[in-house]
Amino acid sequence: MARIVMKFGGTSVADLDRIRNVAARVKREVDAGHEVAVVVSAMAGVTNQLVAWCQSLSPLHDAREYDAVVATGEQVTAGLTAIALQELGVEARSWQGWQIPLLTDGAHGKARIDRIEGAELIRRMQAGQVPVVAGFQGIGPDHRVTTLGRGGSDTSAVALAAALHAERCDIYTDVDGIYTTDPRIVAKARKLDRIAYEEMLELASVGAKVLQTRSVELAMKERVRVQVLSSFADTPGSLVVDEDEIVEKAAVAGIAYSREEAKLTVRRVPDRPGIAAAIFGPLAAAGINVDMIVQNIGADGLTDMTFTLPRADLPRARKVLDGVRAGIGFAELLADADVAKISVVGVGMRSHAGVANTMFRTLAEKGINIQVISTSEIKVSVLIGAEYTELAVRALHTAYGLDAA
Amino acid sequence: MARIVMKFGGTSVADLDRIRNVAARVKREVDAGHEVAVVVSAMAGVTNQLVAWCQSLSPLHDAREYDAVVATGEQVTAGLTAIALQELGVEARSWQGWQIPLLTDGAHGKARIDRIEGAELIRRMQAGQVPVVAGFQGIGPDHRVTTLGRGGSDTSAVALAAALHAERCDIYTDVDGIYTTDPRIVAKARKLDRIAYEEMLELASVGAKVLQTRSVELAMKERVRVQVLSSFADTPGSLVVDEDEIVEKAAVAGIAYSREEAKLTVRRVPDRPGIAAAIFGPLAAAGINVDMIVQNIGADGLTDMTFTLPRADLPRARKVLDGVRAGIGFAELLADADVAKISVVGVGMRSHAGVANTMFRTLAEKGINIQVISTSEIKVSVLIGAEYTELAVRALHTAYGLDAA
Repeated sequence: MARIVMKFGGTSVADLDRIRNVAARVKREVDAGHEVAVVVSAMAGVTNQLVAWCQSLSPLHDAREYDAVVATGEQVTAGLTAIALQELGVEARSWQGWQIPLLTDGAHGKARIDRIEGAELIRRMQAGQVPVVAGFQGIGPDHRVTTLGRGGSDTSAVALAAALHAERCDIYTDVDGIYTTDPRIVAKARKLDRIAYEEMLELASVGAKVLQTRSVELAMKERVRVQVLSSFADTPGSLVVDEDEIVEKAAVAGIAYSREEAKLTVRRVPDRPGIAAAIFGPLAAAGINVDMIVQNIGADGLTDMTFTLPRADLPRARKVLDGVRAGIGFAELLADADVAKISVVGVGMRSHAGVANTMFRTLAEKGINIQVISTSEIKVSVLIGAEYTELAVRALHTAYGLDAA
Repeated sequence: MARIVMKFGGTSVADLDRIRNVAARVKREVDAGHEVAVVVSAMAGVTNQLVAWCQSLSPLHDAREYDAVVATGEQVTAGLTAIALQELGVEARSWQGWQIPLLTDGAHGKARIDRIEGAELIRRMQAGQVPVVAGFQGIGPDHRVTTLGRGGSDTSAVALAAALHAERCDIYTDVDGIYTTDPRIVAKARKLDRIAYEEMLELASVGAKVLQTRSVELAMKERVRVQVLSSFADTPGSLVVDEDEIVEKAAVAGIAYSREEAKLTVRRVPDRPGIAAAIFGPLAAAGINVDMIVQNIGADGLTDMTFTLPRADLPRARKVLDGVRAGIGFAELLADADVAKISVVGVGMRSHAGVANTMFRTLAEKGINIQVISTSEIKVSVLIGAEYTELAVRALHTAYGLDAA
């Protein structure tokens, strides 16, 4: 007997039949003797509709009222799921954020969870009742509904699992696990039985959008074991766990790619101390996240500074830099949006040598030019021409021995 | 400067344009120097959708979960209306039942309001803020969302007006006031400037469905002046007030009709004490509301008992009476669903003689047979053949001098 949190995303509760399906899955765990708490998202499409209404009435709408409006989507699903469970003979009760309470800070629209009062829910679970918690929402210090930001229901579920001392947090979604890479590109992509929190974070932040990044960070911090699995298929999912729980560590766990980035080069800037701060300070102030950065060896007291940033921010970044051009003194800005970032990720890199070298050699063999390189303890990323994305990912997947048999 | 509660029904907030229209109307009152609180219903159609979902998942759904689900409709409108007001430069804040709090009893799905904590709302109104309250909902003793039953937003508004010591409760709806009778039947129907609570109650309960009956009862009890007016036209509405506020009392304020009734006659029952209880007891136990009752003069120790009941309850009533037939001993049941109840209503009847006689004479002149008669202090009702409904209402409207010039 275990205590489990089961979380169902928007596509898993998109209509009444799917809600019935969710109830049947929950009942199966209850019948197996487990104590279960459920977290639900809004029915697919509902949140977008509510957000669009707020936007339409006022582009700069009050975040407190936005929260009051959009949090209703999850409340509907929580109530309906409780009814569906009761119909199957499972004792159930819905919970909104303020009822638990799930306490957050006051950052409306993107609140962070401060604390969850788990005692009453634990008491009820022990008495055989299934709490059905509206995800994505809490209550702020101002006694008003807060929301956690898009995808926040994953974070709700992980935080709840921590507060309830659950053995596992099962995230039901429309994919059946975490893959070594995108199966749409690599037919031989393999589902991972286990993946370390750190690997998941790197894969998520570079484009494998299965779990909200914050939820993985929280799971890592609170040591919550997270399972990603399909709400439609009956196959085992992938466990996101501490790397100590992974016995056979491959050098590379997976390969991620992102075509959402752009490359910007600041040509011929004075090569003097403080020049990086002069460039990246104004960008940070404008809320633009810069990722890979390389600075060329200087000559004639001048150098080139190249970095990547979200493609959508490119026009804004050019504007910011044009604004400080006089102060910095650079020759020109070269932008290239036609790039892709390819990353190989694995905690095993710490103990396996030559991972980066395998990457460079493999890409060279395919004639793919590397524009920028960046590395971390468990990741090697390269920037290449966007047209080579699929070719590169496939070649690397084979080179690291990830192909399914 | 006055303090006003403005309530907007589902058709008045049916889409974003109408919500903007509501905000503009509220702003006008605020600009005129009034302190305003707003009560809103769910957008037209939303509550029906939510109810249908609950029904579909479980015909005998838990009322607590039903309440959690259906209360969201008003929360959405409250938040959106607050945003629309802010966009017009009006300071506004949405309030759900649990936030005020609006405390109800624990009768989920049809809760009654116990108490409203008005102090914080009054403080904010005095500081220039407009509270936008989600109608139809409150919080029960079990710390769970309750709803007041269909049409409950009218009751929310009246109760709020009482708690805030408001000078008036304006109910904005899709009609522009209370009429002497149904304008679809009588082209010369007149809008009433003022109508007494008691008259409104009688007109509402016999078919003039503008205000929820409970809201009028509450307004009468709490002496809240209610104005019914159109949210689309810019015409003055009708005031529902204490009869002392009506200076020129006409004998008859209005004429109502209902085709939702049926007549049932229990033929040849023993004419002995306790026979009425033997018939109406089982009907009451089955939740069937009986209205007009007449008992004929008996002969041979037998009598006939005739009464009206909601047409929809006719099959059930027959079943109930067939079940107790052996115990009571009657010859047969005669049912007639082809009837209409016509009522003339007016507090002026108390001081004007001959109102009933005018009714009987008028109907006789048109050759309309009266099947059953019942009277109260401010109402005379007759049951006639359904086919005569329009003819009777028009003739009476003229006979009582109600026709517009």
